[in-house]
Amino acid sequence: MAIVRLIEYAEAAPEVRAVYDEIMRARGTDWINNFWKALAHDPALLRRTWDSVREVMAPGALDPLVKEMIYVAVSATNGCEYCTHSHTAAARKKGMSEAMLMELLAVVGLANQTNRLANGLRIPVDPQFQ
Amino acid sequence: MAIVRLIEYAEAAPEVRAVYDEIMRARGTDWINNFWKALAHDPALLRRTWDSVREVMAPGALDPLVKEMIYVAVSATNGCEYCTHSHTAAARKKGMSEAMLMELLAVVGLANQTNRLANGLRIPVDPQFQ
Amino acid sequence: MAIVRLIEYAEAAPEVRAVYDEIMRARGTDWINNFWKALAHDPALLRRTWDSVREVMAPGALDPLVKEMIYVAVSATNGCEYCTHSHTAAARKKGMSEAMLMELLAVVGLANQTNRLANGLRIPVDPQFQ
Amino acid sequence: MAIVRLIEYAEAAPEVRAVYDEIMRARGTDWINNFWKALAHDPALLRRTWDSVREVMAPGALDPLVKEMIYVAVSATNGCEYCTHSHTAAARKKGMSEAMLMELLAVVGLANQTNRLANGLRIPVDPQFQ
Amino acid sequence: MAIVRLIEYAEAAPEVRAVYDEIMRARGTDWINNFWKALAHDPALLRRTWDSVREVMAPGALDPLVKEMIYVAVSATNGCEYCTHSHTAAARKKGMSEAMLMELLAVVGLANQTNRLANGLRIPVDPQFQ
Amino acid sequence: MAIVRLIEYAEAAPEVRAVYDEIMRARGTDWINNFWKALAHDPALLRRTWDSVREVMAPGALDPLVKEMIYVAVSATNGCEYCTHSHTAAARKKGMSEAMLMELLAVVGLANQTNRLANGLRIPVDPQFQ
Repeated sequence: MAIVRLIEYAEAAPEVRAVYDEIMRARGTDWINNFWKALAHDPALLRRTWDSVREVMAPGALDPLVKEMIYVAVSATNGCEYCTHSHTAAARKKGMSEAMLMELLAVVGLANQTNRLANGLRIPVDPQFQ
Repeated sequence: MAIVRLIEYAEAAPEVRAVYDEIMRARGTDWINNFWKALAHDPALLRRTWDSVREVMAPGALDPLVKEMIYVAVSATNGCEYCTHSHTAAARKKGMSEAMLMELLAVVGLANQTNRLANGLRIPVDPQFQ
Repeated sequence: MAIVRLIEYAEAAPEVRAVYDEIMRARGTDWINNFWKALAHDPALLRRTWDSVREVMAPGALDPLVKEMIYVAVSATNGCEYCTHSHTAAARKKGMSEAMLMELLAVVGLANQTNRLANGLRIPVDPQFQ
Repeated sequence: MAIVRLIEYAEAAPEVRAVYDEIMRARGTDWINNFWKALAHDPALLRRTWDSVREVMAPGALDPLVKEMIYVAVSATNGCEYCTHSHTAAARKKGMSEAMLMELLAVVGLANQTNRLANGLRIPVDPQFQ
Repeated sequence: MAIVRLIEYAEAAPEVRAVYDEIMRARGTDWINNFWKALAHDPALLRRTWDSVREVMAPGALDPLVKEMIYVAVSATNGCEYCTHSHTAAARKKGMSEAMLMELLAVVGLANQTNRLANGLRIPVDPQFQ
Repeated sequence: MAIVRLIEYAEAAPEVRAVYDEIMRARGTDWINNFWKALAHDPALLRRTWDSVREVMAPGALDPLVKEMIYVAVSATNGCEYCTHSHTAAARKKGMSEAMLMELLAVVGLANQTNRLANGLRIPVDPQFQ
């Protein structure tokens, strides 16, 4: 059970509905996922978070699928169950195959391993990297 | 100062030199970075880690630059100074522009933010994502 | 299911019961939450942990509600499900409103974001801050 | 050394200067700290991050000093050197005494400890907390 | 539900079965735990991970039980539910008593606490330790 | 530079000196490391932390060297520079060889890797482990 009640469209205030409408339009869906229904308790937080997601995840110097896979990499590293499920689903919708997912996680695992070898040995940064 | 002495090529055992040689050949460089010089205290760990890096970071379902950027994303999330410097340098060598780096970090920052909103509110995973 | 069996009051050793009694008296409740029932397998750990909680969370230079909200902030950052639920409940009991919780989590999310921007860019600390 | 060059006011583009001006005005200072000078490589990220900091850290249901201390708690938990220094300095400017800082860190330490006891024992959440 | 389907022995490709067989032989069991059934989607990752586990966890300068307890310590610190359950079970099979588990977690909790006191106060490393 | 001034023996209050004396006596040294000199700003925190360290790290079901190595494993996982240096030094003093350190870090690296594979794939815990 969530820490706060989830706010459904039918009962939402106008400024919350406005964000819900934008999300559904942007994604071409007719439902809102639980993350936004919880943020809706703070309409300013909901608006700010959605605006950030929309801007950051848009095509730019990196393509949206690469961005979505980076999101999965961070979520797996942090152990966020909700985000791992929701962003893996989003990455698949954008074209991530099973083989791509497995390679992505192999990199995430390796990086988490060598991060600790480097931190555990307190290795000084080579001047060539700076 | 590192926790262990860094082992230079000149003083390295044959099985360590063999790995050093492979690293320099694969990267087209004539120097070894400190990470490997510390792992060299355990030749089996050195060999296993290099073999893993070589296999995991090779072209596959994902291209090597995307993999390198995922490595940076994990290292920034974990706060590993050494790995952030070394893998950002590697990603630049593979073609990452300043604009790509900034977008990558914007995604990393956003994911770390929403990971905590989802965890702090203990939001249940939508059935549609499973 | 917990990794260890939960030890109920009825079956607890005297030194465990003594801690359980103190907890219920301090909180004005007639039940013990699962955290303590698991620690009870090591009565010294149970005693030390309860004494620390009692001392650290007491009124001092900071008021108990602020302390409880800091506890929630850390638990959300670490993704600890049990602690997020228990300390959010404790903070609400001490007066945290829904609006306060949402603002608290907005700060937690923002801090987790900018922590990674700072770490990913390895920004040197300004002399003015030291 | 930072991963990217720090962009000084004199060389900054107009939209970067506009953010720098707002920051100095809001804080009553005549200098910009390194964090913003690094973000300036991506003016949209700079603008979005500053707007978020301004909104989230403003007085609301929580007072700004409490928010700043929550920021310190998260930064200490994540081990972000830059953020720990900058937000501790900010909290002191807003009135945090040495005694308040030490109590804050005592709570942070305790929460990090009990988070791991709860996670290591996989303690089920009590129904009373949900 | 896992992010990927779990691959059972009966439907597994020959190189996956070969790893499954080695795991069961090494452990003296007639079943494969879910972790490997998920990795099986990437036979190279499955093979590499199993080979690493086999080599790293073998008797050496440290005995296998100590290694297994270190695995538990890391898993509890990271909050990995699957790994905490599976490696606590493995440590018990190798002889870890309830008293040993509780002491192990007491150290894990303490280390997580003092890690944050040290990081929150940014304490400089004493020259004697370097 | 530390966030707080380090408090030297000569200027310390009696209750702080009492802890310093105990630390030096327990360790057979004539100096105090920086960690305690920073905690000394809060004599109750200093006392509580030292008492916890003394009790938790004492011989029990686990021997002190194993406990010290678990401390190193957690500190490397969290990336705490101070703690990695100080507890590696302590483990060496208690008998940890270079080979033991390298094996310890190999386990820490592997656990951090498989923790993320398990979390990234959201693998359900096998009933046999519960």
